[in-house]
Amino acid sequence: MEKFYVISYDIADDRKRYRVDKLLKNNGMRVQKSVFECRLTDAQFLTLKMELGKIINYNTDSVRFYYLCKHCVDMIEYIGNSVFLEKNDFLII
Amino acid sequence: MEKFYVISYDIADDRKRYRVDKLLKNNGMRVQKSVFECRLTDAQFLTLKMELGKIINYNTDSVRFYYLCKHCVDMIEYIGNSVFLEKNDFLII
Repeated sequence: MEKFYVISYDIADDRKRYRVDKLLKNNGMRVQKSVFECRLTDAQFLTLKMELGKIINYNTDSVRFYYLCKHCVDMIEYIGNSVFLEKNDFLII
Repeated sequence: MEKFYVISYDIADDRKRYRVDKLLKNNGMRVQKSVFECRLTDAQFLTLKMELGKIINYNTDSVRFYYLCKHCVDMIEYIGNSVFLEKNDFLII
């Protein structure tokens, strides 16, 4: 069973940030520059945490994991634009 | 009764970002550069959303509101550093 996570980061080094971005994009959807929404099984979540842990600098960086139950997912709100366009994405209007 | 929110933003303009930061700092605790954790009553939450809505640019910016119930709050995890030091903060060791 997949669970819903909001994963946000502060990563100081550009190369590390690129690697974290890539990892998170493979595991979910970017909704803001440093915020991703992911649906993960327990095993996928543990693996992702471990892989992120190998990349980050524990002094300067942080990654936060917010699990949201179904009820909390239904309560998600936003103002402003909802779609984070990756550099090579195109919005077909 | 206060509810727990994770509020994250992407704000393009520096002055708008400063104003959003100030507003969010008055309503909660910054845990990452663009992520805050806030405990708010329903009235405070509505007011905060309205005030943020007056500041942001609806084309370039976004603010996301994640309500977390007690169970989800208990599940919060992080790796790396947990404290976001504001520029004028001092860590007394």
